[in-house]
Amino acid sequence: MIVEGCPLRTIWPAADGKTVEIIDQTLLPHTLVVRRMQTMQDMAHAIKSMQVRGAPLIGAAAAWGVALAMRTASDDAALRHAAETLVATRPTAVNLRWAVDRMRLLLQPLAASDRPQAAWQEAGRIADEDVTLNHGIGRHGLELLRTLYEKNGATINILTHCNAGWLATVDWGTALAPVYQAFDAGIPVHVWVDETRPRNQGASLTAWELGQHGVPHTVIADNAGGHLMQHGRVDIVIVGADRVTSTGDVCNKIGTYLKALAAHDNAIPFYAAVPSPTIDWQMSDGLREIPIEERDAEEVAWIQGRTESGEVLQVNVLPQNSPAANPAFDVTPARLVTGIITERGVCHPDQLRSLF
Amino acid sequence: MIVEGCPLRTIWPAADGKTVEIIDQTLLPHTLVVRRMQTMQDMAHAIKSMQVRGAPLIGAAAAWGVALAMRTASDDAALRHAAETLVATRPTAVNLRWAVDRMRLLLQPLAASDRPQAAWQEAGRIADEDVTLNHGIGRHGLELLRTLYEKNGATINILTHCNAGWLATVDWGTALAPVYQAFDAGIPVHVWVDETRPRNQGASLTAWELGQHGVPHTVIADNAGGHLMQHGRVDIVIVGADRVTSTGDVCNKIGTYLKALAAHDNAIPFYAAVPSPTIDWQMSDGLREIPIEERDAEEVAWIQGRTESGEVLQVNVLPQNSPAANPAFDVTPARLVTGIITERGVCHPDQLRSLF
Repeated sequence: MIVEGCPLRTIWPAADGKTVEIIDQTLLPHTLVVRRMQTMQDMAHAIKSMQVRGAPLIGAAAAWGVALAMRTASDDAALRHAAETLVATRPTAVNLRWAVDRMRLLLQPLAASDRPQAAWQEAGRIADEDVTLNHGIGRHGLELLRTLYEKNGATINILTHCNAGWLATVDWGTALAPVYQAFDAGIPVHVWVDETRPRNQGASLTAWELGQHGVPHTVIADNAGGHLMQHGRVDIVIVGADRVTSTGDVCNKIGTYLKALAAHDNAIPFYAAVPSPTIDWQMSDGLREIPIEERDAEEVAWIQGRTESGEVLQVNVLPQNSPAANPAFDVTPARLVTGIITERGVCHPDQLRSLF
Repeated sequence: MIVEGCPLRTIWPAADGKTVEIIDQTLLPHTLVVRRMQTMQDMAHAIKSMQVRGAPLIGAAAAWGVALAMRTASDDAALRHAAETLVATRPTAVNLRWAVDRMRLLLQPLAASDRPQAAWQEAGRIADEDVTLNHGIGRHGLELLRTLYEKNGATINILTHCNAGWLATVDWGTALAPVYQAFDAGIPVHVWVDETRPRNQGASLTAWELGQHGVPHTVIADNAGGHLMQHGRVDIVIVGADRVTSTGDVCNKIGTYLKALAAHDNAIPFYAAVPSPTIDWQMSDGLREIPIEERDAEEVAWIQGRTESGEVLQVNVLPQNSPAANPAFDVTPARLVTGIITERGVCHPDQLRSLF
């Protein structure tokens, strides 16, 4: 997508052919910083600290992480160590495990000396495939928005939660791919951006990337969506997902379930947009089976922003002795999901198996 | 209630007999500052800027505001001007209008010279009555918690939204009055405190006052409550309200509706605790009739907290050019409300009329 007028991805092999560069998303929207990853440990840290985040992007990042590991040591022990280290960074992320497994499957049979180059190429392929998948999601989602526009004849108001835009992927985004394609096709759209506490990925990332592309949007507190839906100010909800079960349960950023309940209560369509690697074909009961990452309570306590003088720093919003809890995801049962938008098309959650 | 070991109210006539003192709630939880209100305009500013907030407290504050006005000028024009100025500070607040109307009704027939003293006494009575009402709410709500405890035999987990504790009233609180009374009666309770964006009254005020009283609690992002309910970690939801219709629709801080939906979806009881002045007997359709205050978008953009070095300041979390919207309240339809806790007892929302 376009940033400051130039096309950019979220992750790419550096010009030196030996390292990988990423946008450090923890500093957005205040500063655009590109970081160079020299080692697998650099990449594991980038994933764990959420310098890169978003299910598809951390899949690609983990693949590059394996590739970086192979440049230092490419024996079986090194491969196993890289895979285990990277998978442990974000336990909820199915794409991460998927990408690491794909790298292992490819590399395991090869001679150690062949692994570095093969890993480098495969990571590049995984990244390119993500771009293709997301473009497909956008194409199918665009038709949903076009149909709504043809029916309503007015600006389509889309509500989204967290960031499932191009920053969450290698390019295009999942939930936002349809929005970008609709915008580019001249369909009038406006996005209600949930700020998405505790890490504020909506306010920091979604608002920033929509703004860079020129898409009209308004940031709201996570609390506001239900009220807007009650008053007819939301036409459709589109979110991404960290994992979707084979039965269409959607595991996504904490708070997604609340928006799905409100959409259901107000007869507003609720869609999850996911590339097929996000579908976990082994699972059929999201609420019981999907492990929910409990992240550091400090993420609730400390909020980052810029002061009046332009300095970026963190402030603590809690009383000195109050504890906090920070479950990072929730599961929206399939019964609340109107449809899943994939690269193969849009389907009812209980028809995922027949679509694939 | 107890603050730093001493009993304190949120508002009281100063020792000089001419001014009124308040706790400045915009500086909590970081600093406890008492401010002296010399004039009606001081009080109007305190209400508008939310130095005092919470439906019952702003009722009492407005009454004191009228009393302060009468000390300067007590003719009919002054009385009308004070009433209009104070009512305009927070259009959604039914207690505010109720308190101002009560003051006007009392003062209008009196000679201008008698008004200052009568107003002063009446404001004091309104404050004292609020304390009595809230104590009554606590007594009835305590029985709900006791019944749950007798059934579960384990710590009762209460989820609350925003601040409807003693800081929202003159003393005791509405939603938290039952919690304090249960805690004092030795029933084990734990409160999930929604941080309550955009102004963070949960993290700033509810957590602070519970901590001062020693009540176990955990702050969570507003997004987390649904997930906790899905996993059996919430036994009951109790919120306050800015206004309740005669039919039991509950207008409360933005985001309350989302928690009511989640409680309903998980068969968890959802109660609103309100003193009877919060009931608007004129209204029967909350969604259509209750005006929703749209507050400054800057409240979404700027978050106050303390830095690592202990300084209290605000940081902006939005990209430079992203707009925000800030509807301050939403309406939870009566169909999602298990019961209303009032000073007269607990009733089903459609039985409010017969209770009163």
